[in-house]
Amino acid sequence: MGNKKNALPIALDAMGGDKAPAAIVVGAIRAVRAGIDVLLVGDADLIRPLFPKGVDIPILHTIQAVGMGESPAAAVRAKKEASVRLAARCVADGRASAVVSFGNTGALMAACLMELGRIDGIERPAVLSTLPRSDGGQLVILDLGANVDCKASQLGQFAVMGDVFARCVLQIKKPRVGLLSNGKEDAKGNEQVRGALPVLAKMPVNFIGQVEPNDALNGGCEVVVCDGFVGNVMLKSVEAAIAVAGHVLKEEILGRLDAKLGARLLRGAFRRYRARTSASGVGGAYLVGVKGTVLVGHGAADPTAVLSAIKRAHSAAKEGLSGRIGEAITAAAAGVMADDT
Amino acid sequence: MGNKKNALPIALDAMGGDKAPAAIVVGAIRAVRAGIDVLLVGDADLIRPLFPKGVDIPILHTIQAVGMGESPAAAVRAKKEASVRLAARCVADGRASAVVSFGNTGALMAACLMELGRIDGIERPAVLSTLPRSDGGQLVILDLGANVDCKASQLGQFAVMGDVFARCVLQIKKPRVGLLSNGKEDAKGNEQVRGALPVLAKMPVNFIGQVEPNDALNGGCEVVVCDGFVGNVMLKSVEAAIAVAGHVLKEEILGRLDAKLGARLLRGAFRRYRARTSASGVGGAYLVGVKGTVLVGHGAADPTAVLSAIKRAHSAAKEGLSGRIGEAITAAAAGVMADDT
Repeated sequence: MGNKKNALPIALDAMGGDKAPAAIVVGAIRAVRAGIDVLLVGDADLIRPLFPKGVDIPILHTIQAVGMGESPAAAVRAKKEASVRLAARCVADGRASAVVSFGNTGALMAACLMELGRIDGIERPAVLSTLPRSDGGQLVILDLGANVDCKASQLGQFAVMGDVFARCVLQIKKPRVGLLSNGKEDAKGNEQVRGALPVLAKMPVNFIGQVEPNDALNGGCEVVVCDGFVGNVMLKSVEAAIAVAGHVLKEEILGRLDAKLGARLLRGAFRRYRARTSASGVGGAYLVGVKGTVLVGHGAADPTAVLSAIKRAHSAAKEGLSGRIGEAITAAAAGVMADDT
Repeated sequence: MGNKKNALPIALDAMGGDKAPAAIVVGAIRAVRAGIDVLLVGDADLIRPLFPKGVDIPILHTIQAVGMGESPAAAVRAKKEASVRLAARCVADGRASAVVSFGNTGALMAACLMELGRIDGIERPAVLSTLPRSDGGQLVILDLGANVDCKASQLGQFAVMGDVFARCVLQIKKPRVGLLSNGKEDAKGNEQVRGALPVLAKMPVNFIGQVEPNDALNGGCEVVVCDGFVGNVMLKSVEAAIAVAGHVLKEEILGRLDAKLGARLLRGAFRRYRARTSASGVGGAYLVGVKGTVLVGHGAADPTAVLSAIKRAHSAAKEGLSGRIGEAITAAAAGVMADDT
């Protein structure tokens, strides 16, 4: 696949998300202008009228989609031509380099399991994303919600996948991998953490043991592993706290200033702050552990978030994320330290 | 006890904490000046020289203290006159209205269990604190680390304790109590959460079901209940994210402004921001479920944090927090809705 893969478009589920298809199509147009090929998957009769004059993006037409009220997994199983499933199939068929959807996460997960399948040696796919660190770096965190109760073996696989992501997408030479916990000392951690520690210690990654959320966010490691329940709590806590912090600081700064002057001085600062710290800034999370690059966008995505998500999917596909995870998991099973290159 | 209790001093472990006894004594002096009586418990030979001219705070002298390298529980058991244990005993003996320590949390917990004992019907004490909400309110959260793996019955008791705290210390009429989870829908939650839902639904509190961290921080409830592992992750995530947010915003604001103007603009704003959102602003967490008001201060507490902690302990003791928790737990066991007054 090598070079050819880079030329493949990103398959974009045009029908998923609160603002679909309009926000998705506008985001896709921006991506194409930024030099990334996109294949829109969805109802051509709804999509094409959204193209401005002179714009023509390929459409893979289907009228099936997963509705808001439906059980996601059941809907995906029943609707073989649902846009999200068809988009995943494009990756399986070699017609697209990655799939991006802003629809229901469960539906995307089901579609990817059906159309792409799990990587050998991975028990369950995981949701992976990055959080802003105080030192300007990014913290890779997984799982963020796909698996609420995890076995030690799954956490070990998450460690390998997070390590591969940090090395090949973020270009970090030897990422430090930590297990999320309530303290660093031996006596800390809950039953799950204490059970997982020896398993992670045997993984071919640079495992540094238990890490606390504050240490991780302050640059103590590059990858943090946890079950999907705890990871989801951490992700949403960080996102909410960043929003709370923004509110409070704005109040404190503007409270003692002439309102007009304050507004002028701060214009742009809060926008750039949100871009650096918000979900729409990073665009969405990866679903890792399936055979293909998959990006789970936020349902509320606006065109900016859609563009960011497409860029994220593109960079991971370019680095061959999914294939390299497969190699690392095979190497881990064989007890070999993953290649640093 | 009624009125007399209000006149009792706060027993302050002068020997616990990274900056003890100096920071503790300076904080105590500020508290006395603010009208709160304090009883310093520790080595008089180290404490008294720290008093400025004209200041004299009562000291309960002891040369025993829990050292940094010791096993906290074992040290407290062995040292009957350790400052933290003696301070807790003052509450048991009716010589103090509350105990405050900035030393090891495990040591304080052990001291309180030995000297004060658990409230009848409480399986395990919990650590409770508040987080800033985006709407300006406070979110009560427990447990924050005392119990990493919790049974449903314990989470039920936490709900009752959090409810009492919100009503009697924060003066909230009918606090909404949520169970921390990764989503609101029935299918969400991990095994522990799903097991606890029916137990919490039967508690005599205004239980609203599962809540996500972002909803809770945005004003969706007043009390959030979780096990100590998850609570600790949420607390540290919020604290770290608020710090990260501060860094990023400062960079963004100062990056495009004349430095002098920027400094003038921001003077005070970040200080007030930290006061509203940081641990030293709130002063510490409560240990609830023991027979007495107990405040667990941060080890790194400076005099400002010490003063805040003393104030927090004072306000909870004034409201008879521990006694009212006892009444509510008894009422819950009897299936009676707690009194709103």
